[in-house]
Amino acid sequence: MKRKPRAKPLLGNTAVDQRIGSRRLAKENRLVAGVDIGGSNLRVALADLHGNVLGRWNTSTKATSSPDMVIALIEQGIECLLSQSSCSRRSLLSVAAAAPGVTNPQAGVVLATSYLKGWRDVPLRQLLEFTLGVPVAVENDVRMAALGEHWVGTARGVDDFVFLAIGTGIAAGAFTNGKLIHGSNWTAGEVGYMHVPLAAEEPARPGEHGALENIIGGEGIRRQWASTCVDNPKSESLTATEIFARASTGDPLAKRVLEHSAQLLAYAVYNISLVLDSSLFVLGGGIGVSIPLCDSTRKILERYNEPSRPKLVISSLGTDAQLMGAIRLALTTAKQPIRA
Amino acid sequence: MKRKPRAKPLLGNTAVDQRIGSRRLAKENRLVAGVDIGGSNLRVALADLHGNVLGRWNTSTKATSSPDMVIALIEQGIECLLSQSSCSRRSLLSVAAAAPGVTNPQAGVVLATSYLKGWRDVPLRQLLEFTLGVPVAVENDVRMAALGEHWVGTARGVDDFVFLAIGTGIAAGAFTNGKLIHGSNWTAGEVGYMHVPLAAEEPARPGEHGALENIIGGEGIRRQWASTCVDNPKSESLTATEIFARASTGDPLAKRVLEHSAQLLAYAVYNISLVLDSSLFVLGGGIGVSIPLCDSTRKILERYNEPSRPKLVISSLGTDAQLMGAIRLALTTAKQPIRA
Repeated sequence: MKRKPRAKPLLGNTAVDQRIGSRRLAKENRLVAGVDIGGSNLRVALADLHGNVLGRWNTSTKATSSPDMVIALIEQGIECLLSQSSCSRRSLLSVAAAAPGVTNPQAGVVLATSYLKGWRDVPLRQLLEFTLGVPVAVENDVRMAALGEHWVGTARGVDDFVFLAIGTGIAAGAFTNGKLIHGSNWTAGEVGYMHVPLAAEEPARPGEHGALENIIGGEGIRRQWASTCVDNPKSESLTATEIFARASTGDPLAKRVLEHSAQLLAYAVYNISLVLDSSLFVLGGGIGVSIPLCDSTRKILERYNEPSRPKLVISSLGTDAQLMGAIRLALTTAKQPIRA
Repeated sequence: MKRKPRAKPLLGNTAVDQRIGSRRLAKENRLVAGVDIGGSNLRVALADLHGNVLGRWNTSTKATSSPDMVIALIEQGIECLLSQSSCSRRSLLSVAAAAPGVTNPQAGVVLATSYLKGWRDVPLRQLLEFTLGVPVAVENDVRMAALGEHWVGTARGVDDFVFLAIGTGIAAGAFTNGKLIHGSNWTAGEVGYMHVPLAAEEPARPGEHGALENIIGGEGIRRQWASTCVDNPKSESLTATEIFARASTGDPLAKRVLEHSAQLLAYAVYNISLVLDSSLFVLGGGIGVSIPLCDSTRKILERYNEPSRPKLVISSLGTDAQLMGAIRLALTTAKQPIRA
């Protein structure tokens, strides 16, 4: 069969429309791609129109943080996955990409990141549409993970919930009335800066970690451990997850760090849930998926009274939440029906 | 002209539909009523379809807190206002009522109040529709005030803002994406229970005031004043507004109470705005409209850094916010176009 020339991609806010061409493809050859741009890793997943993942690809972004290079890597990943599935570029209907920073999904622009050496006002959607020739959507990575959890994760069908990512930083992706909230400056959910009792009382300066992040982000927990071990110079340098795992085995110093972290996390969850009345908090991120942290925090929340006592669970999708959210958003972008 | 008999009111979730009959009335005779049921006062306002208030009526609810009595008072108020406007009951298209407690507007039920001697599961919409024979909507009073501010107040046209009512208690009515949020149990915005630094760190027990309310609700501010004046047995008993007014004249003890209250309010506003990224906070309620409190809190917030630095203003509608919100909701309930 002679191929028709590909439609010339349109730039700007108008989504590229290849639907007419796409309709001629067999349904099994119509695909979407989800992308997660992380501070250290870039991941791409190819999926069919049912949302089934057909292949995954990942690479490091440590050496290559410029938008041009990241876009070239995304193209490389998509090409590789299409080739593995014996599909051509014409099979690709749409792409959605999660960005690790303040993102305006309406304009398709990444406004600011602290990762990737600090992107500023990068028109990611436009650049990707130009390169890939299909409609593209972009979204903040934590909100994208919330979208994934709402679609096929722990929060499936829950209209008011919070996905709380706890890693190096802390941020929330919140659904109210069944929809993601973004806020007036696209920064809703930056709860790492929250003031909570027992944490530092001075607000953080720009670029610094916020009050809550300072204590229960990755660095904060390591600092807690170091100060707890100050009288024991032989104590090891451990990651947050290792400290919490050690607390589970009964180590009293590690237990002290775990208890303090759980108390602060409980304050934060309680305060956020008073604002939103979310019935469910899904914990994600490298530290958020720690079972000892979730269990200890849940026990503290159980002692709290109404009006707010949300259910606290660990993400069932884990690190796949962003990718599944991206596939979900890519399907919407391709105007495909979404399976519930 | 011979009048047609009034349509028999329907009960349950189905709104009473009198639109066919109403269409025959001249436009100037088609009216809606907004009701604000307070813990001590009941207020009713009659408005035309442009939202212009034609008359107001109020009475005390101190002696008469049962749902039946309150409904009888509402009917009395509406009858009185219709009569003053030389209009019959047939002119009334719809009513909306603000309730001082946890309210499910979908079911039209007031779930719980701490005022009015504690209503529980009162089907207010059904009861009012039966009595008044027109479609009725009900909503929590603070959310109703937010609706009023969004329609004709300080937050007109702002899609992401918070109305923060500070009086005896503290609660927020929040708009995100241009819509009120209610939460999974209709308790979104119960921020009086928030934990903030410098406040009590133990969560409040049911029926008690929450952590933030404990300090900067009306009683809390009076307690702060009493403890500040502990060395001065001749110090007067003052209300929160009087204490803040005295701070403005330079009284050092009153200034201490004002500064502490403003610091806690700034923490709360900052924390809420991190969750929602609201560009605007509208302060209402008896204490919230204090200019010294707003000014002092604004100065503290200005020292805070991004990502959140919302604009803080005092409600332009004051105590009318609930009534204007109720008129707005009554117009929607009557399926009337809303002027922006």
